[in-house]
Amino acid sequence: MATANSVTATPVDWAAILAAHDRIRPHIHRTPVLTSKSLDALAGARLYFKCENLQKTGSFKIRGATNAIFSLTEEEARRGVIAHSSGNHGAAVACAARWRGTTASIVMPRNASPVKCRAVESYGGKITFCEPTVTSRSETTARVQAETGAVMIHPYDNDRIIAGQSTAAKELLEEIPDLDVVLAPVSGGGLLSGTCLGAKGIKQAVKVFGCEPERADDAYRSITSGTLQSLETSDTIADGLRASLAPRTFAVLQKLLDGILLVSEAEIVAAMKLLAQRMKIVVEPSSAVALAPMLRAGGLQEIAMAGQHHPATRKIGIILSGGNVDLKW
Amino acid sequence: MATANSVTATPVDWAAILAAHDRIRPHIHRTPVLTSKSLDALAGARLYFKCENLQKTGSFKIRGATNAIFSLTEEEARRGVIAHSSGNHGAAVACAARWRGTTASIVMPRNASPVKCRAVESYGGKITFCEPTVTSRSETTARVQAETGAVMIHPYDNDRIIAGQSTAAKELLEEIPDLDVVLAPVSGGGLLSGTCLGAKGIKQAVKVFGCEPERADDAYRSITSGTLQSLETSDTIADGLRASLAPRTFAVLQKLLDGILLVSEAEIVAAMKLLAQRMKIVVEPSSAVALAPMLRAGGLQEIAMAGQHHPATRKIGIILSGGNVDLKW
Repeated sequence: MATANSVTATPVDWAAILAAHDRIRPHIHRTPVLTSKSLDALAGARLYFKCENLQKTGSFKIRGATNAIFSLTEEEARRGVIAHSSGNHGAAVACAARWRGTTASIVMPRNASPVKCRAVESYGGKITFCEPTVTSRSETTARVQAETGAVMIHPYDNDRIIAGQSTAAKELLEEIPDLDVVLAPVSGGGLLSGTCLGAKGIKQAVKVFGCEPERADDAYRSITSGTLQSLETSDTIADGLRASLAPRTFAVLQKLLDGILLVSEAEIVAAMKLLAQRMKIVVEPSSAVALAPMLRAGGLQEIAMAGQHHPATRKIGIILSGGNVDLKW
Repeated sequence: MATANSVTATPVDWAAILAAHDRIRPHIHRTPVLTSKSLDALAGARLYFKCENLQKTGSFKIRGATNAIFSLTEEEARRGVIAHSSGNHGAAVACAARWRGTTASIVMPRNASPVKCRAVESYGGKITFCEPTVTSRSETTARVQAETGAVMIHPYDNDRIIAGQSTAAKELLEEIPDLDVVLAPVSGGGLLSGTCLGAKGIKQAVKVFGCEPERADDAYRSITSGTLQSLETSDTIADGLRASLAPRTFAVLQKLLDGILLVSEAEIVAAMKLLAQRMKIVVEPSSAVALAPMLRAGGLQEIAMAGQHHPATRKIGIILSGGNVDLKW
């Protein structure tokens, strides 16, 4: 068993990651790592796709939610859990709460997609709608929490969540130990900070890059400026990436991340189509963000230079974070 | 290692299947077996999907083609290979021929989909177009074969092809040994006869059913009448299932198959959408045919009765044959 060199200085240490993995393993899928010679040819490198779109509830979010909810004491669990989410975290919290035998209240904006609402309800989650503003969301969540006494499960500003999300990259590195680089999308940073911890815990020298839409570039600005930046716009097609880093995830990324790669909306759409056509898998736009940099001219060189790689970067892991997209047919 | 009880009386014996698997294993993917709790709930049984849509070239056809082409003598291989196909078999023969270091001529109808033609060419196959009639296809194939001396690789009326296709079900039963039933689509019968041989070679008591569009029901009529029937119509959306059984596949099916389940066009489309929405995978309509019977009211009972199961059928394997579909976005 590898020990985590880079990881020990962060609040989420290797012991926490191992405990998280043991805790969630009976509940989640160990998702397959898929490859495609035709995408390798396009990228000029060997790509290894960790398919969290094939995960239970359709995204990696179930890893963190399960770790957080199964870490609660009996007394806490009896009070139920609460989360605010317009997407995958809500479904994951509802599902993990049902597994734990407790109740989940999910605060969702009135304009949330009907598909996402049905997913939460299908796992037994109780939805409370709020207005689609940060203020209404906070007030509604506080009110429901006060009424129910439920335990808040934050989508990323939570060490148990980060430890849970780290297990996707941990599994990927266990299966393909000689990766040079791992790419993951970044939004609030739970998956990306977990990816840094999980990947570098297995192989200290692996480089980890976050991939982010140009139209939601707060992580890029935060990392390059060294100061936590807020999100100015959020009109990207990658609807799972409309959150900003939190102090906890920013701290991990400042320590362990090797850089952020920005991608355009057109690149996201092209990557999503290519994954369906060539790899026969359905991913949501947020997942396609992590493949997109590999498909542009000079993408491999860009990554190799950013990671100061000598010799050339050859094996690249890509975390496909989820598959929950409203298909139009 | 299991030995094959039911299988020894057929020309494709267990030794041939083991040899085929050893021969192709270095080249093909061992495709994942995926599961979905939500589809289990719809079907009322536990479903295990063997994902040949994630196979190299996008379908199971690469298994048979690789076995056939790597079984050729050096002298035969030097002559090159030839196949007629409007779809997955052509791409598979071209790809396996390239792996073997020889040339492939593929005879395709003029109205073949541009996507399928590009796939053949991307593997280095040389296309000769014919008119979209059986006569023109035969004449063109015979002419090219006479000119080149290439070895004909029939898509299913070939023991090496059948042995290769059998390895998908063999892998499925190796991974899930206690399956009660396996479902596979049927067209020319290469996959279905291979599925009977591969599955029953591991577990003699497993029931195997073919799934077929109502609009291309020749296998159903052949099996129920006991006489090889031709295909009257072929306007099903399942474009991979527009061939008829051959004497060789019919003989295997008469001996080993437990029945044929017919499905409507609407059931095929619904199954295909459900696989994308719930399982996040892209399948071609021909693959969806094998899930469709499980989704209708009474589907499980229909299968349990057809297989004369006591007690109830609980674990069902489904061969998802391919993922090559022209997506409209």
